[in-house]
Amino acid sequence: MNYPSIPPFDLDAANNARTRQNQLTKPPGSLGRLEEISIRLAGMKADPCPSVSSKAVIVMAADHGIASEGVSAFPAEVTKQMVMNFLRGGAAVNVLARQAGASLTIVDIGVASDFDPSLSGLLHRKVAHGTLNMARGPAMTRTEGEKAIVVGMDVLAGAAENGLDLIATGDMGIGNTTPSSAIAAVLTGLPVAAVTGRGTGLTDAGLAHKVKVIERAIALNKPDPKDAMDVLCKVGGLEIAGLAGVMIAAAARRIPVVVDGFISTAAAMIAVGLVPDVRNYLFGSHESVEIGHRVMHKHLGLTPLINLNLRLGEGTGAVLTFHLIEAASRIIREMATFAEAGVREQG
Amino acid sequence: MNYPSIPPFDLDAANNARTRQNQLTKPPGSLGRLEEISIRLAGMKADPCPSVSSKAVIVMAADHGIASEGVSAFPAEVTKQMVMNFLRGGAAVNVLARQAGASLTIVDIGVASDFDPSLSGLLHRKVAHGTLNMARGPAMTRTEGEKAIVVGMDVLAGAAENGLDLIATGDMGIGNTTPSSAIAAVLTGLPVAAVTGRGTGLTDAGLAHKVKVIERAIALNKPDPKDAMDVLCKVGGLEIAGLAGVMIAAAARRIPVVVDGFISTAAAMIAVGLVPDVRNYLFGSHESVEIGHRVMHKHLGLTPLINLNLRLGEGTGAVLTFHLIEAASRIIREMATFAEAGVREQG
Repeated sequence: MNYPSIPPFDLDAANNARTRQNQLTKPPGSLGRLEEISIRLAGMKADPCPSVSSKAVIVMAADHGIASEGVSAFPAEVTKQMVMNFLRGGAAVNVLARQAGASLTIVDIGVASDFDPSLSGLLHRKVAHGTLNMARGPAMTRTEGEKAIVVGMDVLAGAAENGLDLIATGDMGIGNTTPSSAIAAVLTGLPVAAVTGRGTGLTDAGLAHKVKVIERAIALNKPDPKDAMDVLCKVGGLEIAGLAGVMIAAAARRIPVVVDGFISTAAAMIAVGLVPDVRNYLFGSHESVEIGHRVMHKHLGLTPLINLNLRLGEGTGAVLTFHLIEAASRIIREMATFAEAGVREQG
Repeated sequence: MNYPSIPPFDLDAANNARTRQNQLTKPPGSLGRLEEISIRLAGMKADPCPSVSSKAVIVMAADHGIASEGVSAFPAEVTKQMVMNFLRGGAAVNVLARQAGASLTIVDIGVASDFDPSLSGLLHRKVAHGTLNMARGPAMTRTEGEKAIVVGMDVLAGAAENGLDLIATGDMGIGNTTPSSAIAAVLTGLPVAAVTGRGTGLTDAGLAHKVKVIERAIALNKPDPKDAMDVLCKVGGLEIAGLAGVMIAAAARRIPVVVDGFISTAAAMIAVGLVPDVRNYLFGSHESVEIGHRVMHKHLGLTPLINLNLRLGEGTGAVLTFHLIEAASRIIREMATFAEAGVREQG
C-alpha cells in the first residue's frame, strides 16, 4: 500500500514563532504550554504566525465482533443508535463541536447494522458489517484494513477541500476499548492488564474477563509488533483503521491533528507505526480515565493538554482542546510586542 | 464593615442537575469534571440547567511599595505601561477575553502613577498611589483596605447591571506575587519559602532575597491569621482587596467566580476569610507555576481545571477556562437523554 509523503516539520517557522513569543508583552515563558503549542503549530503549518479558523471533527463508527464476548457494559446495537443521535445533534460531540465552531463529519465505516442509504448527514463508507471476533481469528483481512485506511484518507481529503486548519478525531463503536487495549499491549510490549480499563463502565469481574479475552486474542493471532498493519488487521477495528487514515492524510497536508482519547490514540499508534513522520502533526488532547492512555501517550511522545477524567470518546476531549490551540494561535497573532506597546522589558 | 449576605448553594438544583447528567446519552460519569462543573453551576445559580452567556473579566491594577526592595524582575513603571497596553487591546488577557466573548473591565485601584482622568476605557477608582513598603510598616490603613474592597464590590455591581453569568478575576501590579506569598504564608501557617516563587522570572539569588523580604514584613507587622482584614491591610495589596470585593459581591448575586492565578487566589483567601460562604461560588481555574498556588487551592478546597504552566496573571488562566465551564453548561442544556434519543441504557 502506498502512503502519501509527509512534509518535514518547518524548523524555521517554529524558531521564528519562538522568537516572537519572547517579544510579546509578557514575561518570557509565562504563557507556558500555550507558547509551546504556538511553536509546534508554526512548524506544522510552516507559518510563524499560524491561524486556526477552519476546524473539523471526524467521527468514525464501527462495530466489533469481540463485543459478543461480553466485553462492554453496553449492547452492540447502541453503536447504530448513537450514530442516529449524532445525526440528530443530541450527543456530546455535537454539543462541543457546535461550541467550538467546528464542522462534524460522521462516517459509517463498519457499523454492523445497515443504515437507509438515503439517510443524509452520514458518510456511507461501510467496509464491512463490523469486524470478526478477534478471540477466534483475525478481526479483519488485510484488504479490509487497507480499504478502511483509504476511506479515512478520502474522508480527510473531502473535509480539507475548502481549507482546514485543525482536525479532531473521534470514534463510536461498542466494544472498541478492547481492540485499543490489544493494540497498546502489542505495540508497547506491556502486559494486557496494564493497558486495559473499564471502558464505558465494567465491573471488577467484567474487567478481569476483558483482560482474558484480549490475552486470548493476542495469543491466537500473534500480531507482529514490528508490522502495524498486521496488528491493526488482527486485533484492531475498522474505525481505528479509518482514523489512522485520517491522520496520515492530514499530516500529508500539514493539517494538525488533535488526537482524542483511548481509541483515537490507538489509531495514532497505528498511523505512526505505518508512517512515522505523522507523529510531527499530532497534538495529545486529554488524559483519559482508561489506564492504558498514559502509556500510549508516552509511546507517542505526546503530552495531553487537559485531564478532566473524561472517558467518552466521540472526539469530545479533542474538540474541547481546540479552544486552547486556537488561544495559542491568537496569542502569537494578536498580542502586542514590547516595542509596539512601549512596555519596558525585563531587567 | 458590612458585607452582603451570601445565598445558600442550592442543593435541589444541584441534585436535579446530577440526575439529568445520568439520563444524557453517554455512560454515566464519562464526562468527568464537566459533569461536576455543571452540578456546581446548578447549585450556584439555583438553576438545574444553568446557562453561561454573559461573561466578564475584571482586572484590578495597583502598585506595591515593596517593589522598591527589588522583589520583581520588572521595574514598577511597567504596571502603568501594561494598563495602557490593556486599554489598547494588546495584552494576553485582551486576546483571550475576545476569544471567550467576554467583556473586559480594567480598574486603576492603586497604580502609583497618574492616568489622564479623561482616559476612556479605564475605571478611575484609585484608592492610593500604590501601597506602602510592607517591609517597613503596614502596606495600607484599614480605611484604605475597606475602601478598596468597596471599589471591588461597586465594580462588580456595575458589571452585573445587565445580567452576568460568569466572572473571571485578573490582576496587574509589578511586585504583587510578594504580598500574595505573604498572605498565603500567614493564612496557611506555612514557612514563607514554601509559598514563594520566582514571579515574573527571578534568579535564585532574587528568590532568596524575596523570601527574606517577606519574612521581615511578616515579623514586623505581625498580621493576625484569624483576621483576614488585618492580613490584607498589613501585607496585602490594593488590587488584592479589590478582587476580594469583586468575589464577595459576585457570590451575593449567585454569579460564579473563576479565580485566576496566584494573586487572584490570594484575594480569594482574603474574601473567604472575610465572608466564608463566598467559597461556594468559586471555581479554581489553573494551577500556576508559582509553588504557593497549590497550597492556596488546598486551603480553599478548590481543584483547578487545567495546568498549562501559566504564570502571567491578568486573568488569563481564568478566562481560558470559561470555555470548559460553558461546555459543562451546554452539555447539560443541549444533549439528548437516552429516552429522547431512543438509545438503550447500560445493562
